[in-house]
Amino acid sequence: MRLDAHFDHWLRNALLQVEQALERWVPADAPAGLGEAMRYGVLDGGKRLRPLLVRAASEAVRGAPEAALRAAVAVELIHAYSLVHDDMPCMDNDVLRRGKPTVHVRYGEAGAMLAGDAMQALAFEVLTPDDDSVAPALQARLCALLSRAAGHAGMAGGQAIDLANTGKALDEAQLRDMHHRKTGALLEASVLMGAATGAADGAAWQALSDYGAAIGLAFQVVDDILDVTQASDKLGKTAGKDLHLNKPTYVSVLGLEVARAEAQRLRREAHAALDRSGLADCAHLRQLADLVVDRES
Amino acid sequence: MRLDAHFDHWLRNALLQVEQALERWVPADAPAGLGEAMRYGVLDGGKRLRPLLVRAASEAVRGAPEAALRAAVAVELIHAYSLVHDDMPCMDNDVLRRGKPTVHVRYGEAGAMLAGDAMQALAFEVLTPDDDSVAPALQARLCALLSRAAGHAGMAGGQAIDLANTGKALDEAQLRDMHHRKTGALLEASVLMGAATGAADGAAWQALSDYGAAIGLAFQVVDDILDVTQASDKLGKTAGKDLHLNKPTYVSVLGLEVARAEAQRLRREAHAALDRSGLADCAHLRQLADLVVDRES
Repeated sequence: MRLDAHFDHWLRNALLQVEQALERWVPADAPAGLGEAMRYGVLDGGKRLRPLLVRAASEAVRGAPEAALRAAVAVELIHAYSLVHDDMPCMDNDVLRRGKPTVHVRYGEAGAMLAGDAMQALAFEVLTPDDDSVAPALQARLCALLSRAAGHAGMAGGQAIDLANTGKALDEAQLRDMHHRKTGALLEASVLMGAATGAADGAAWQALSDYGAAIGLAFQVVDDILDVTQASDKLGKTAGKDLHLNKPTYVSVLGLEVARAEAQRLRREAHAALDRSGLADCAHLRQLADLVVDRES
Repeated sequence: MRLDAHFDHWLRNALLQVEQALERWVPADAPAGLGEAMRYGVLDGGKRLRPLLVRAASEAVRGAPEAALRAAVAVELIHAYSLVHDDMPCMDNDVLRRGKPTVHVRYGEAGAMLAGDAMQALAFEVLTPDDDSVAPALQARLCALLSRAAGHAGMAGGQAIDLANTGKALDEAQLRDMHHRKTGALLEASVLMGAATGAADGAAWQALSDYGAAIGLAFQVVDDILDVTQASDKLGKTAGKDLHLNKPTYVSVLGLEVARAEAQRLRREAHAALDRSGLADCAHLRQLADLVVDRES
């Protein structure tokens, strides 16, 4: 896909800032190789979609940049730790991620488990700086949003459903519930954490929440489509994995053409939510929805 | 050991409240068995030393009881998740904990990993209630203290050192550094989280920090002593485990008698810290230091 020049510039700049912040805040000096494994698991890779959503949502509500940067890093740390644990032999047993050997292949299973555990803790460390760069009430609000998205009602709960249903048939509603938790909760939280850094009234907050839910689902639908239509080298991870693991996906439940139509419908839903938000500066959120649906990896 | 009647009454009451709060806040209805595994990992077991420290420190500074109860539950969730992960085959590979089969024996490795992950997130959920029962600035302070104690500079870092040094000789300073992180950081944070719920001036805060460091170390020294002097049925976990895994311990480094003397010295250090805290209501903290040193399991 081609991006317009302004959006492309914004994207590069936002990505650079997130990479620099991760480089700064993920410790190189944690003991006994732990820092090295943490950095391997989160630096130099990934689309950084969640940080971009935090940043775009924060700009839409004219939020505090320092708080938004910390929220962006925190949500990416949670996402990255979930991948580290998810790739382990007792879960998906995957050896390739972001074009590199997975963390447990490189640092052993215990090293990967500890790195993931420490990355989750680090997310909350980053959200609660000792200085006064983020207002304490906002620190608390960001911790509340992130912990709920990461925990039993969100990401971890979705993974438990995923684990329990490998090899079983799910209907569309069950599949949607699983992905709403497993992937959607953290994507939605990214938008809301960005929104929390500024002033969003009730209507704007609800619209951004609807936007987050729509792109959260769209992301997973597109993921399932790419899993069957793209090669591993393009994805940077093992293609055809869901099929191989006999996991229910939008493609296996709906078929490829209906899944593609569903992705387009969710893009329109996301755009419509922004239209009713009453926020003037939504262009980047709109373009991120396009990026989610039109991406090729 | 025998406890005085007043302390015994306080202890029973505090433990009851922690158990009730865990029962209430650890979800039974998390999807696909996740809640069941989380509850199995944290309910009905353990000495609850960390919650007791939170509570006693909070009372010493006349802290907010609701905040202290949430802090107590949060720190116990972090401790319990660390045990769940630590017992897994890729770490210590233990099958017995708190007198029951370990979580991965009961729920599988993936189930145990996810339950631990969700327990860590839940700790931060519990610290950030949606209602106004805990002041937002205090929520942020508690999240800051807990995340740092749990993460790379604290517990997870200590576990990485432990993992890297199994089968290797450590001197006393290295052993102390490992345990200061692995066990001490969370015990010290328990005291400081309790202190944060009320008004502790600089001198009192420093004294409570010193108290926490002393009992943190004492706890591990006594743990190492019990590992070689008690049977598994008394401990509720596998005895002789460190010896079996060829891990350096205070007993292997110092010898049994010197380790016992060190535990007594740390008790005196903890008591001396309370004496200089300037806080009037330190009796329970003092008695908890005795409990740590004199315990038989």
